[in-house]
Amino acid sequence: MTVHFNNAGAGLMPTAVTQAMTGYLTEEAKGGAYETEQRHAATLERGIYDRLARVLDAPVDDIALFDSATRAWTSVVSHLPFAAGDRIWITPYEYAGNLILWTELRRRLDLRVEVVPVLPDGDLDLDWMEANIDDDVAFVSVPHVPSGCGIVLPVEEIGRILAPRRCFYGVDACQSVGQLPVSLAVIGCDLLTAAGRKYLRGPRGTGFAAIGSRLRARVSLPFHDLHTADMVADDAYEVRTESARRFEYAERGNPGVMGLDAAARHHLARTDSGPGPLRDAVREVVEGLPGTRLIDPGSRHAALVTFTHDRVPSQDIRAGLHGRGVNVWIAQGSHTPLYMRTVGVEQAVRVSPHYYNSPADVETFAGALCDVLR
Amino acid sequence: MTVHFNNAGAGLMPTAVTQAMTGYLTEEAKGGAYETEQRHAATLERGIYDRLARVLDAPVDDIALFDSATRAWTSVVSHLPFAAGDRIWITPYEYAGNLILWTELRRRLDLRVEVVPVLPDGDLDLDWMEANIDDDVAFVSVPHVPSGCGIVLPVEEIGRILAPRRCFYGVDACQSVGQLPVSLAVIGCDLLTAAGRKYLRGPRGTGFAAIGSRLRARVSLPFHDLHTADMVADDAYEVRTESARRFEYAERGNPGVMGLDAAARHHLARTDSGPGPLRDAVREVVEGLPGTRLIDPGSRHAALVTFTHDRVPSQDIRAGLHGRGVNVWIAQGSHTPLYMRTVGVEQAVRVSPHYYNSPADVETFAGALCDVLR
Repeated sequence: MTVHFNNAGAGLMPTAVTQAMTGYLTEEAKGGAYETEQRHAATLERGIYDRLARVLDAPVDDIALFDSATRAWTSVVSHLPFAAGDRIWITPYEYAGNLILWTELRRRLDLRVEVVPVLPDGDLDLDWMEANIDDDVAFVSVPHVPSGCGIVLPVEEIGRILAPRRCFYGVDACQSVGQLPVSLAVIGCDLLTAAGRKYLRGPRGTGFAAIGSRLRARVSLPFHDLHTADMVADDAYEVRTESARRFEYAERGNPGVMGLDAAARHHLARTDSGPGPLRDAVREVVEGLPGTRLIDPGSRHAALVTFTHDRVPSQDIRAGLHGRGVNVWIAQGSHTPLYMRTVGVEQAVRVSPHYYNSPADVETFAGALCDVLR
Repeated sequence: MTVHFNNAGAGLMPTAVTQAMTGYLTEEAKGGAYETEQRHAATLERGIYDRLARVLDAPVDDIALFDSATRAWTSVVSHLPFAAGDRIWITPYEYAGNLILWTELRRRLDLRVEVVPVLPDGDLDLDWMEANIDDDVAFVSVPHVPSGCGIVLPVEEIGRILAPRRCFYGVDACQSVGQLPVSLAVIGCDLLTAAGRKYLRGPRGTGFAAIGSRLRARVSLPFHDLHTADMVADDAYEVRTESARRFEYAERGNPGVMGLDAAARHHLARTDSGPGPLRDAVREVVEGLPGTRLIDPGSRHAALVTFTHDRVPSQDIRAGLHGRGVNVWIAQGSHTPLYMRTVGVEQAVRVSPHYYNSPADVETFAGALCDVLR
């Protein structure tokens, strides 16, 4: 049996998810994809939105579906009404994909991108934020949990600091949805993006977002697809909805949407207390072995335990563990370059357990890691 | 047994396609999605591109994957380097989704959008094109087969007219790939977009494009995802490829990509002569019934037979056929508004057979249609 400690890459889908997908696929192949869609309209047009609204604790009109969290993020952020000179706040934990987008937007729109400073332990300097926030700041971008190291950022506290200000506040919740409580209402952000495939245990090729009404009202999109707009004259179209669905395209892989819906249901029915205890156990194993170095800044840690070893390269550790039936992954320094550069890490081993893993999995991992580092 | 005459909506997936998808999905659920991706890298990173290049008769570097054909089209066309005053040529068969995009681009960039005139029978006026093309025309947009009526547009002849000119030439091949020979090389266009789910019999949520190098060289994208670009300094990123893949996002639903690959293989192994004979048989059935009116302009027809009835509304015909085990669909006038308005059609019945349907299917359809119109 494989031990899957790569939930930060993609969680293992529960049977309910794969069954929802293969069942739907079979219906499509027998009876036609559009005909099947009509039969499942209650789920595809309403149910999935209701359930994702519960997952994110957001109004259902804020929910939109995408083929990835990156698509969700860029679909919104690329079209924000920035003005020349606007300040953008990011953190040292910003994902490189977002940095590419900021770099290009900065060039095109003459924005000023500023990195919020951190305290010596890696926590964000909230006092600095409080003291420096003003209405030149147009957007603040914070990952709830970065993909390369296990810090949990204080998105709720940041929300309180930003609340009185005009800036939009975007939170990348890719690594937190499914492992930590995530609530648009409590965080108080305007944009919350997430992937289906990680701690929510849904299928790949699914992403979703909550896009708040204040933000939606300010975004003028270059394209609306036919399911939310109509041509009403030779040179005019009309958008039929002000909900977040106007950010969507009509066509999507419905088997994936059915799988995401099953994953959301599965998640909403959970009664476990999350991956915290297994994360602590994994952390203890790693710390107990000579030559290891944990990369986990800050005072609050998520279920991503990232480390290097002073002798064995991270890729060799991953390969060695894989050969022993334990899935872990590599955290690329280049994916969170601002922070990882400060700790001098190009590649680290990332171990990401989830609630469905067991203490026996941790033992298997411990044994395999001892072996590999021997 | 359902008779599926809605291939213009989505073709029935062959068993090879659903098996490829469910097999891959099962591997993901057991062993992890990223681990499964690594095992199938030969297909996901190379094989699918090679095969789609053969499907479109295009260089492999021109191929990019998207989650829909609409995404493929807008990902390219939204970012073309248009200048104020540029002329855009479309046809009366332009898809409403594209019209929405043109309307917005016209507004933002001050373009002039012109509709190529048609002859009395609905064929494009190629003499007019030949006489009026000049270097003010920046882009020419032509659907190979429109979704609302069965004309085949002479994309190759248009290509010859445009070849000496500076304009870019985009062909929407959604309804033609899989039913007609499609060749980027012969058409001579810069952009060819297609959906997996229609006559290619692939999964929903898959689209692809051939994006020629002349066009790629002129497009500056606002976003490159991490699989094709890296941050190389605090305020600079570098794109690693000049291939069409720089239009892609990294994340995608791999089961769908595996299904698309299986569909492409299945298509490339075909030895049939296409849906032509069944289309003729369907057309004869419809013409032979009193009160029907065929909506099929032009001198060359595809396997989309579209009609109305002078007494029975199209929606009732569709529902009646569906109740009798025959899948057809509604062609909305609003989806091809420029043409459908000229023939005064708001909704028509669209019957779209494919090569795998049988003469017995046509008989079933004929009997059911007689019944419904009685």
